[in-house]
Amino acid sequence: MALRTAEEYIKGLRNQNREVYIHGEKVTNYVDHPCVRPVIESVALTFEKAFDPEFENWLVKDSDLVKGPVNRFLTVHKSQDDLVSRVQLLKMLTPQHGACVGARCVGQDAIHAAYITTYDIDKKYGTNYHERFCKWLAEMQEKDLAVSGMVTDSKADRSLRPEEQEDPDSYLHVVQERKDGIVVRGAKAHQSGALVADEHLVLPTETIRPEGKQYAIAFAVPADTPGIIHIYESPAGTVRRLLPGAGEMDFGNATYGVHGASLVIFNDVFIPWERVFMYQEADFSTEMVEYFARMHRLAFCGCKAGHCDILLGACMLAVEYIGLTKASHIWEKLVTMFQNSELSYGCAIGAARLGYATPSGGYMPDVSLTNAAKLQGGRAVAENANLAMDIGGGLLCTIPTQKDWENGEIREYINKYFRGKAGISTENRIRISRLIEYLMGQSSVIPAESILGGGPPETQRVMLRVTLRQRAGWMKERAKVLAGIKE
Amino acid sequence: MALRTAEEYIKGLRNQNREVYIHGEKVTNYVDHPCVRPVIESVALTFEKAFDPEFENWLVKDSDLVKGPVNRFLTVHKSQDDLVSRVQLLKMLTPQHGACVGARCVGQDAIHAAYITTYDIDKKYGTNYHERFCKWLAEMQEKDLAVSGMVTDSKADRSLRPEEQEDPDSYLHVVQERKDGIVVRGAKAHQSGALVADEHLVLPTETIRPEGKQYAIAFAVPADTPGIIHIYESPAGTVRRLLPGAGEMDFGNATYGVHGASLVIFNDVFIPWERVFMYQEADFSTEMVEYFARMHRLAFCGCKAGHCDILLGACMLAVEYIGLTKASHIWEKLVTMFQNSELSYGCAIGAARLGYATPSGGYMPDVSLTNAAKLQGGRAVAENANLAMDIGGGLLCTIPTQKDWENGEIREYINKYFRGKAGISTENRIRISRLIEYLMGQSSVIPAESILGGGPPETQRVMLRVTLRQRAGWMKERAKVLAGIKE
Amino acid sequence: MALRTAEEYIKGLRNQNREVYIHGEKVTNYVDHPCVRPVIESVALTFEKAFDPEFENWLVKDSDLVKGPVNRFLTVHKSQDDLVSRVQLLKMLTPQHGACVGARCVGQDAIHAAYITTYDIDKKYGTNYHERFCKWLAEMQEKDLAVSGMVTDSKADRSLRPEEQEDPDSYLHVVQERKDGIVVRGAKAHQSGALVADEHLVLPTETIRPEGKQYAIAFAVPADTPGIIHIYESPAGTVRRLLPGAGEMDFGNATYGVHGASLVIFNDVFIPWERVFMYQEADFSTEMVEYFARMHRLAFCGCKAGHCDILLGACMLAVEYIGLTKASHIWEKLVTMFQNSELSYGCAIGAARLGYATPSGGYMPDVSLTNAAKLQGGRAVAENANLAMDIGGGLLCTIPTQKDWENGEIREYINKYFRGKAGISTENRIRISRLIEYLMGQSSVIPAESILGGGPPETQRVMLRVTLRQRAGWMKERAKVLAGIKE
Amino acid sequence: MALRTAEEYIKGLRNQNREVYIHGEKVTNYVDHPCVRPVIESVALTFEKAFDPEFENWLVKDSDLVKGPVNRFLTVHKSQDDLVSRVQLLKMLTPQHGACVGARCVGQDAIHAAYITTYDIDKKYGTNYHERFCKWLAEMQEKDLAVSGMVTDSKADRSLRPEEQEDPDSYLHVVQERKDGIVVRGAKAHQSGALVADEHLVLPTETIRPEGKQYAIAFAVPADTPGIIHIYESPAGTVRRLLPGAGEMDFGNATYGVHGASLVIFNDVFIPWERVFMYQEADFSTEMVEYFARMHRLAFCGCKAGHCDILLGACMLAVEYIGLTKASHIWEKLVTMFQNSELSYGCAIGAARLGYATPSGGYMPDVSLTNAAKLQGGRAVAENANLAMDIGGGLLCTIPTQKDWENGEIREYINKYFRGKAGISTENRIRISRLIEYLMGQSSVIPAESILGGGPPETQRVMLRVTLRQRAGWMKERAKVLAGIKE
Repeated sequence: MALRTAEEYIKGLRNQNREVYIHGEKVTNYVDHPCVRPVIESVALTFEKAFDPEFENWLVKDSDLVKGPVNRFLTVHKSQDDLVSRVQLLKMLTPQHGACVGARCVGQDAIHAAYITTYDIDKKYGTNYHERFCKWLAEMQEKDLAVSGMVTDSKADRSLRPEEQEDPDSYLHVVQERKDGIVVRGAKAHQSGALVADEHLVLPTETIRPEGKQYAIAFAVPADTPGIIHIYESPAGTVRRLLPGAGEMDFGNATYGVHGASLVIFNDVFIPWERVFMYQEADFSTEMVEYFARMHRLAFCGCKAGHCDILLGACMLAVEYIGLTKASHIWEKLVTMFQNSELSYGCAIGAARLGYATPSGGYMPDVSLTNAAKLQGGRAVAENANLAMDIGGGLLCTIPTQKDWENGEIREYINKYFRGKAGISTENRIRISRLIEYLMGQSSVIPAESILGGGPPETQRVMLRVTLRQRAGWMKERAKVLAGIKE
Repeated sequence: MALRTAEEYIKGLRNQNREVYIHGEKVTNYVDHPCVRPVIESVALTFEKAFDPEFENWLVKDSDLVKGPVNRFLTVHKSQDDLVSRVQLLKMLTPQHGACVGARCVGQDAIHAAYITTYDIDKKYGTNYHERFCKWLAEMQEKDLAVSGMVTDSKADRSLRPEEQEDPDSYLHVVQERKDGIVVRGAKAHQSGALVADEHLVLPTETIRPEGKQYAIAFAVPADTPGIIHIYESPAGTVRRLLPGAGEMDFGNATYGVHGASLVIFNDVFIPWERVFMYQEADFSTEMVEYFARMHRLAFCGCKAGHCDILLGACMLAVEYIGLTKASHIWEKLVTMFQNSELSYGCAIGAARLGYATPSGGYMPDVSLTNAAKLQGGRAVAENANLAMDIGGGLLCTIPTQKDWENGEIREYINKYFRGKAGISTENRIRISRLIEYLMGQSSVIPAESILGGGPPETQRVMLRVTLRQRAGWMKERAKVLAGIKE
Repeated sequence: MALRTAEEYIKGLRNQNREVYIHGEKVTNYVDHPCVRPVIESVALTFEKAFDPEFENWLVKDSDLVKGPVNRFLTVHKSQDDLVSRVQLLKMLTPQHGACVGARCVGQDAIHAAYITTYDIDKKYGTNYHERFCKWLAEMQEKDLAVSGMVTDSKADRSLRPEEQEDPDSYLHVVQERKDGIVVRGAKAHQSGALVADEHLVLPTETIRPEGKQYAIAFAVPADTPGIIHIYESPAGTVRRLLPGAGEMDFGNATYGVHGASLVIFNDVFIPWERVFMYQEADFSTEMVEYFARMHRLAFCGCKAGHCDILLGACMLAVEYIGLTKASHIWEKLVTMFQNSELSYGCAIGAARLGYATPSGGYMPDVSLTNAAKLQGGRAVAENANLAMDIGGGLLCTIPTQKDWENGEIREYINKYFRGKAGISTENRIRISRLIEYLMGQSSVIPAESILGGGPPETQRVMLRVTLRQRAGWMKERAKVLAGIKE
Repeated sequence: MALRTAEEYIKGLRNQNREVYIHGEKVTNYVDHPCVRPVIESVALTFEKAFDPEFENWLVKDSDLVKGPVNRFLTVHKSQDDLVSRVQLLKMLTPQHGACVGARCVGQDAIHAAYITTYDIDKKYGTNYHERFCKWLAEMQEKDLAVSGMVTDSKADRSLRPEEQEDPDSYLHVVQERKDGIVVRGAKAHQSGALVADEHLVLPTETIRPEGKQYAIAFAVPADTPGIIHIYESPAGTVRRLLPGAGEMDFGNATYGVHGASLVIFNDVFIPWERVFMYQEADFSTEMVEYFARMHRLAFCGCKAGHCDILLGACMLAVEYIGLTKASHIWEKLVTMFQNSELSYGCAIGAARLGYATPSGGYMPDVSLTNAAKLQGGRAVAENANLAMDIGGGLLCTIPTQKDWENGEIREYINKYFRGKAGISTENRIRISRLIEYLMGQSSVIPAESILGGGPPETQRVMLRVTLRQRAGWMKERAKVLAGIKE
């Protein structure tokens, strides 16, 4: 059976070794680590929801490589409708976890790019990458593995090309060619969910020139292959989970809310030929990277629109809790947030609808619409975070912690002085504030205080309005004189 | 001597009691607490720099209330030049600490508002608030105390006025009138630096109607008065300081970088009449609040322009470290950041220059220019944070910690794979990334990943440019036909 | 045959009377009037291109009402693909004329709304509007008439509802009910292309309450029905065509560039019952208006994206003519213009792709995506106009006229001093500037001078960059100190 | 007496010859030409208001070159307060005419730059330009002449320097050096108000390299010197004045509303040495240009803020006329317009306040604040034009003409169907619409129709709000689940 349960996925992870360092310590049981488990829970949803009728049409698909249904994250988009479904799937899925399923989502983008490009390489060079790739993909589908896509190299000096760097390992490359395969060295940085994937699909990160052909490589590798080392993220929001005494009320999105990126080091890792999908074909590096990036940008827009949905929901609740539901300036902001997100989502759907077939049969979305949608998606999240800060108010800077809340000496004060309108639970107000804090990126103090210090922006607009009203008579008088109006 | 040293200020704090709860625990030695000490260090600079020739003209001023020079933060602005100097002072001072000196700065705004309004109340009602106030202010100047201004009430239901709230304590109010003074109850929320001030000057937070006259109160109170309780902030960036194993490399701005806000509860606190500066004169509440807010918004613009200066400095360093100094799109972004901040600063200087005298002799900046400048200042910090995220790149999500750095097993990997261009120290690259993370509000994961996932915005713009170039021929052809151009 | 040629359309117009006033004069031969003919030329393209293989798939469609192919502008959208094709058709067609085909395009939106709503009214009230409507539509298809949609009433006081206005004729309404039909009075304002349509389809402009049921009417009427009076537009760009001595070089888009809106007065016009499609069913007014508006907003996005394509083409030419093709700040602006327009277009395609069937079988696009796309489309045209002004430079204010050009005494000066780079024809530079002026709305002097006076915005950014570089050292120093960087 | 009356200024113009071509015709009596007279009326205000007590402090100043008071437009800024007054003067003056006084305003900026730079040149080279310049300036002051500043060359290929152009006359340069002076050839393009100035002060337009030293020239020349030829502007709004039958109701700002720019050709014009203020000192060209541009940008901000005041007044009237005074979305837009304009004005005042002395004694405003203010000023006018279009509505595209209004057959229809709320004169509504059309740059049809077609933006926001409300329940549910809220 090609669809695993969430439990089988997690059990599978327990059976795999990882060399991982978290906050400066080597961790053996990474599956239950408080900074990793939430990521696993998100990814587990991609397995669990495959059995949920509401998600079935989006998450399950027949394969042309193996028998029976497989998880859509392991498939190639073969029509405009497939592309549209991909965007919709993420729009539906992200509000379920509010975090990241990079261990599958980025993987699908890499799968798609590799599927198309291997076909094109073979056409030009008579290689058999595409067959190898399809065989590998069939294995992934049959075992229903979580595949992470890996692209971003560590790069060092951005003004130099891979082969010009002082340290040749600044970009992942082949250090030894063997009869049975290649040995690679280097690192992929900021890899979302790589730690909790079962397999990695690795692509080059930028255009490679002929001189740098050792850097033009693509391959797959099981996650527990020796020589792979993870150094794990520790953003402010996540390290809170390591703090003694911190509790689930402090995490905003306690069950899922960790991104889960790591620096992934390839310390002379061996890759057998059957898992190598590009080697030295520098002239195809641009295609592979651009196809990957375009697909990832398309998918991104669905994910971020889903993210904005949660933020909108949280902001509407926060506003209800303090009795501001009817304020017109609040609705101005909510509508702007919605406009920001719909614009990106709609344009991504449009890009998918205008997608076209490549020679391999894989479909690509329209290039300029995809990029336009992604630019807007990033802007939406950033601008909406600022608007959420404006709506959420000063409490976002001073949300009490679970330990404060559980301390009998001060709980009554918190309950009394952080309450909203009558009948609303102060605890819920705290919880929704933490969620907003999480969704806007644990963004506290400086931007929040800048937006809110001296009163939120609306109060300055009110004063401008007061002055404008005072000057209105004079302004209108001047307009009348110039327009020739006499009365 | 009316100017204390930084050491005297800190020693003074040690001699004062505080009832304060931090992260759920009652703290006795708050002065040395890792989440409080940085705030004290910032405020200490306002004492220390008074003896620094570079700052002297801005920080020291002769008083008309006491003999000899006093700290400018304890003075009333008596001219347009005073207003201009205030903005300039903060523009100079903020880059020294990168945090907040609310314990003095907000206080000055409250002092200014109370000075003017008490004069006006007396004129109408024949009271003697202004004399009381000047006497108190002279005492502050002579002792060179740090005075925090307190305005924001806890509020509960925002659609109701103070006297309409279910819990009458939702706004600070008088619960008992005694022969020798009044007893107040309520709370002031999100009070920047209140914990490390020597004295609090408390004002109402909004317009009070006659029915709510018990809420129309202004008074001063020594910080160690019984009944005052602080529940301290715990934003993500600050709690990192409580994390076992975290080191100074993890804090971005280790020495100063804590905002230091608290919920300040007044649990039936007694205020003697000589410290009461408004009581039941509801018709002057609007004036007092608006004057405070206007002054605070003016000062804000100097502070935030200084903040933007540091962020610009940090971004320019980050870019240098990775060899991108010559990229034109980076300079586009830096110039936009600079434009954002200069616009707010310049408009604040303009507001100060067009300031006017009130009957008391205190000067107020132009109202609409002040509000226009503040709106832009908030926008500058928010938009610049997003641009800094764009410039800083994915590393902002995965900066290794000091514990990672000090772990012998992985240090070499970090050094190798997070390095920038040749000759640059990886440690410095980590440090500047942490500073940017701090300056943009510990904003990690969601906005950063949204802006950067699938490549930074510039990469999407590049793709748009590619498509635009492809379509240019057709577009130009259409334009020629319509314009009647034949060639 | 259901497809007329352009010549047949124009001949048809000649056979119809119109009561029309242009620039204060009653005009008999409106077909050849210099302010009307260009509009006819645009609309004629919708006939001509139906025979052009490139446009055939988009402009010709089989009807389910009559035999053989009909013009798509007279059809109902019966699938998601129909909706997508509509957006694409306008994206292709607008660059052919650069003006407006309102006499057909707005009509199709009205047709679509009336088709769906009449079906729904009948379902509720047992009326036979839908049958009437289909019969009328079949006639239009068979005769291949240009149908303009009419919606916007004259309105008077916007704070009052139709039935509350002082003058009851402020909204079009029924003044007499006869056995054979109704008599209507009122006016529809700003009607794009109405003068050159063969038939008008008239709908209400907003939600009607039961008290105003006389205003809840929809009907069709041949354009030469007695009692219909047009008062024609005279925007600055169009009146130039009336100027003695003005020539085609002065019009920017000489052949097509007139919008062609008029105030259309219904002076007690009789409508027979078979052309009445709603009468007094006030509860369906909202549906009819919203369906019309949504369709029109969707189509708008295709049209405006086509418009932006021409503007981009013109700007690229203008820049080539003066040797600025390689300036990176120019490309920044062009890419922003392109992003603005692609975002709206893509989102409209997305709205079409997520369209859904109504009970009548007519498809409607997604509501929030359509509105998001339209908001962005308006912003695109406005912001792109400003960017075009910035790119086009001061010449946009001082373009010489054809009469200047043809004056032998000064032609050599114009040729010499308005020339661009070597080898470029000065006449072409003048022509492309006029086209840009036309495309940005004959926007001269004030915005142009504001954007360009004292040098274009780029020159100010250059100065900011100079200052920023000067201060960079100090800014970086502060960042280093705060980050703990020692070197 | 050094202050002329408006009549004396106009009489003076009548006594001077001009070679000028307007709309392709040579014009002898340019003073009374309908496209020129309004410009003269604006400039005449700078004479008239010098005798008006309200303007006296701003328009009249004692000179250190001649006895008695002189017009401020002929003076050098010798203090921060002078700079502040300059900005304020234009903020006050522009609402008096709503057009341009370039014949004096640009002149003052050129005077200021030449005053400072001639001083600096003399210091380095021992020349006596400064003395010459002061003598000339004293003459201007004594005669109270209108001096236009001339900077922008015709340029041709923007990628080449002056000396590299195919046609050496593309930049103004010296073609002959004589004993008594120099002969210059070339042209200055887009010269605001040059035609109605008494004297021109000519500066280089950009940095000149040593190889191009013949282009490094500055000089003054009386306006009626032989060899100077004007080719006059003809933007759409202005040519309307040439239209037979057009009346003052059609011009928006009938008395003053013409910008008045011309292409000014120097056809081998002789300049005596005493009027030459720079010749071949290429190394000072940058200073002279940058000082001119900076001063002009500063002054610009006052002018444009005054312009925005009128537009705000006109928009408020337009809204009153149709009963929309209480709509909150209208006030949102008005406040945004006001914010845009105050921000530029305030920042300009700030730049003036932080001005500094040059060696000559002339003061320069802060460089980065000036440029930041100007960038915002251009943005304000452009963005406010778009908002005005949104507020003004469809009528802006279809305003009836005076001839329509005066035609007895249709006047009653216009009166009836373009009326606003009860009691408002339709004529006044037409007049204020024309003023808005003028103020936003005769911007009709395309941007207006794009912003308003399918309903103004607010209607799309309303639909987004409707959808958002429909989805609110689901969005809030997701937020609750993630935040751990159970209820």
